[in-house]
Amino acid sequence: MSSNDSLSMQKIVSLAKRRGFVYQSSEIYGGLRSAYDYGPMGVELKRNLMNEWWRAMVHSREDIVGLDASIIMHPKVWHASGHLANFADPLVDCKLCGDRFRADKAPTLAEGEPAPITLADKGRAKAALEKAERVLGVTLTRRGKTLDGAVAGDRGYVCPNCGAPFLSEERQFNLMLRSFLGPVDPIGAVVAAVRQAVENGQDADAQRAVAEDVLAESSVYLRPETAQAMFVQFPNVLQSTSAKVPFGIAQMGKSFRNEIKVEHFIFRSVEFEQMEMEFFVPPGEGPKWLDYWKEARLAWWKTLGLKSDSLRLRPHDDDELAHYSDGCFDVEYLFPWGWDELEGIASRTDFDLKAHGEGSGKKLQYFDPEAINPETGKKGWRYMPHVIEPAAGATRGVLAVLCDAYHEEEADADGKGQRTVLKLHPRLAPIKAGILPLVKKDGMPEVARKIVDDFMKAGINAKYDAQHSIGKRYARHDEVGTPYCLTVDGQTSEDGQVTIRYRDDRRQERIKVEEAVDVVQKALRV
Amino acid sequence: MSSNDSLSMQKIVSLAKRRGFVYQSSEIYGGLRSAYDYGPMGVELKRNLMNEWWRAMVHSREDIVGLDASIIMHPKVWHASGHLANFADPLVDCKLCGDRFRADKAPTLAEGEPAPITLADKGRAKAALEKAERVLGVTLTRRGKTLDGAVAGDRGYVCPNCGAPFLSEERQFNLMLRSFLGPVDPIGAVVAAVRQAVENGQDADAQRAVAEDVLAESSVYLRPETAQAMFVQFPNVLQSTSAKVPFGIAQMGKSFRNEIKVEHFIFRSVEFEQMEMEFFVPPGEGPKWLDYWKEARLAWWKTLGLKSDSLRLRPHDDDELAHYSDGCFDVEYLFPWGWDELEGIASRTDFDLKAHGEGSGKKLQYFDPEAINPETGKKGWRYMPHVIEPAAGATRGVLAVLCDAYHEEEADADGKGQRTVLKLHPRLAPIKAGILPLVKKDGMPEVARKIVDDFMKAGINAKYDAQHSIGKRYARHDEVGTPYCLTVDGQTSEDGQVTIRYRDDRRQERIKVEEAVDVVQKALRV
Repeated sequence: MSSNDSLSMQKIVSLAKRRGFVYQSSEIYGGLRSAYDYGPMGVELKRNLMNEWWRAMVHSREDIVGLDASIIMHPKVWHASGHLANFADPLVDCKLCGDRFRADKAPTLAEGEPAPITLADKGRAKAALEKAERVLGVTLTRRGKTLDGAVAGDRGYVCPNCGAPFLSEERQFNLMLRSFLGPVDPIGAVVAAVRQAVENGQDADAQRAVAEDVLAESSVYLRPETAQAMFVQFPNVLQSTSAKVPFGIAQMGKSFRNEIKVEHFIFRSVEFEQMEMEFFVPPGEGPKWLDYWKEARLAWWKTLGLKSDSLRLRPHDDDELAHYSDGCFDVEYLFPWGWDELEGIASRTDFDLKAHGEGSGKKLQYFDPEAINPETGKKGWRYMPHVIEPAAGATRGVLAVLCDAYHEEEADADGKGQRTVLKLHPRLAPIKAGILPLVKKDGMPEVARKIVDDFMKAGINAKYDAQHSIGKRYARHDEVGTPYCLTVDGQTSEDGQVTIRYRDDRRQERIKVEEAVDVVQKALRV
Repeated sequence: MSSNDSLSMQKIVSLAKRRGFVYQSSEIYGGLRSAYDYGPMGVELKRNLMNEWWRAMVHSREDIVGLDASIIMHPKVWHASGHLANFADPLVDCKLCGDRFRADKAPTLAEGEPAPITLADKGRAKAALEKAERVLGVTLTRRGKTLDGAVAGDRGYVCPNCGAPFLSEERQFNLMLRSFLGPVDPIGAVVAAVRQAVENGQDADAQRAVAEDVLAESSVYLRPETAQAMFVQFPNVLQSTSAKVPFGIAQMGKSFRNEIKVEHFIFRSVEFEQMEMEFFVPPGEGPKWLDYWKEARLAWWKTLGLKSDSLRLRPHDDDELAHYSDGCFDVEYLFPWGWDELEGIASRTDFDLKAHGEGSGKKLQYFDPEAINPETGKKGWRYMPHVIEPAAGATRGVLAVLCDAYHEEEADADGKGQRTVLKLHPRLAPIKAGILPLVKKDGMPEVARKIVDDFMKAGINAKYDAQHSIGKRYARHDEVGTPYCLTVDGQTSEDGQVTIRYRDDRRQERIKVEEAVDVVQKALRV
């Protein structure tokens, strides 16, 4: 992060705290690393953003339904999905293909033996060849989808996915947060079991294994993504709705990752909020729908008012793709520290439904009585759908919106002073209209409260605000992004007019109260 | 639960699954004890309920602001609040009937007093008699479903279920779910520390203490209530808003409790959702505001359409009150198993702010420049506010709403068939209007989709539905509580009229499309 960038992040963080968007969690206790609370303005902004997503993805579509699953799911879900490797076993990352695997499950190779590396196709092999040279400083040769020239190191094993011997250190680490359910004190049981193991003369590895055995009975995990519930509940959703493939299941909610590296304020934190949708399509239609969703999702972020120049679609390189994925795009935003991910749109093939079908022994299939079965040529096709997943970050979406809306303006010739203003899209603004009695007397508060009432009846979040001078109130509402302020003065009760002040250009004019409701309502319509 | 009650709960659970309100979590993996997922209809119902709360508590009030804090807070929060101590309750198992209970909630009996044991019926009494002889080596005598001959031991209490004095040791049990943050494998570290302690000859208690010391470095807890964040962030909210006492901070969100006894479907589960508000008032004004809030909260539940006869306010008896509380009321609903709690409205005095002030070393006070300090008699009063807390269950609110709305209706003389219908308040209904083309041709789908669009533009969640016969579609919408169905037929494109069918009385009439939007909009207004 350059000093300029950190300066502007510092300004965002400072405004966020000063105006009640985001506080450090448990601040009076010194804070908790990378945990944040959304204050009075932040909770409204985040709700508005997530409600926009829900409206676009669920309410305004015939082909997507919602879901709200529990954060703690059955541990077998995480076994099947591949998220859980046994805690007692070290994890290793392949530096070439990115696969993370259990060292003890990897294919063994003696030190010095040739280690041919095989990728899924020629394109990926070419990308891997280039990456090996550039990132690892290793020169290999390619024939088809295989790379030659590598030899096994003293680790005794290679990557189970591509065969590469270029591996990270072994780490006993899981990104998932573990907890324990049930009436037994799990740590007490671990202590007793380890004591027994030590007294029996078992070695350290055996002691660790004994501890894991004890914990396995009550261990549960906080979900590291909301997505798996959509796969696991696929049969229930099919049965309880009239959904027909292609269709999607959408979910918003909290996820948790025990990130080693937390950074950039609310961008990457242990506890975060996601907006994910799994779109189920017939085999063969993945590429078409990937194309559809990458465009649809980019367009959605633009409807929130984010600057087009600060948004882009970035296709994943072959070497970035998970081994089961046949295509992925990131929607990226130009944050103060550079381009970074807001949302990933991935083609996941039938990897997930297959994994949970195998893990659970249930058939996670779909039967289309009208479709022609490509194998038999007859009507009636039972298949495992493929999945396109647009997975967006809600909390990092809030950060993008804050960064995009933040403006500092100098004093201008018309006598308007210097100010900081959040030019939020009216649909995202925490408060849509500030209703300000000029003074707290002569019936102005009553008239102002009546106007607030009118707005509330129209379903618009307007707030009465009588604290401090009008100038200070304008400044405060600029900083929280209120698009309109209506000032009630002595005339209002007589002529039914108020002074409307527009946030973005600070223009003021005299209008009827009903017109004000109309102005705001129009701005809130899509 | 009588057999009748369990029957009607069974019907609710069955409808909830069949129509996509509530599924068992991870069902394909055999389910996770007491974890539930909200399906396409359930997620809408829960969102609607919680949005109603937010509208009533935050948007339509000048004196309450929102908050959305992280689930994982600093561990010191739970030390200060008393949760780490209080939630570690001693648990005891009855060796005769198997009930597990909190020792401090069990009926007391002096040592040596006769302890008659009463089972549910004669059969169980016979079995218990035999078990006492065989397993416990105690000979009792039976009369009907009661066993005589046992006497209370030195424990001072007996089983709250059967009255037996044959009890397991007390075991510590913490209601909070614990997890671990950070890159170190906490269990590996515990194993190493315990091994060391065993080798050093430390005793079992010392080994357990060593394990806790190791874990203390990375232990965090999932919040068992949302409330504490409002106390901890009290200073930040004061500073970043223009809030003046009396005012409140409101929060909705998930909480987790490692409940020993989960019951009644979504009523009591490990993971649940709350809607809590802490209302800060000057010292001395607690009783007045307790009175205000107990009435306001009862009234709110009634606005959701819950039957008045099924709602009541129950004052807590003195022996139910927490030691710091000077008054508490429960809003109770008449569930199929009897009256049970929907919401508690408690006067908490200054207990919480004082506790966090002491825990953090910060002054959690409020300064009112206008108020007269009762000690000095002069203007300007610095004090620690007292708190009234209306704490409602969102997930159990969903259950109350489902139970209340559930109706089975017989066929009537007008030829209307038997049906199951959810008579949900229109504001809570997942779908406000079903838009049904009579057949999937002759332009009807296009007209119907245009009508859906009109509803969406008015901000109303309407759904296009063309699957199966009109009768089946009406039945389906009755079961998910859709208050209005609009059927588009061949005439609609000519005269702009549709057939509106009212859910509650199944009346049908022909109206203009715009009138339908009006009908629905009016029903949604408060």
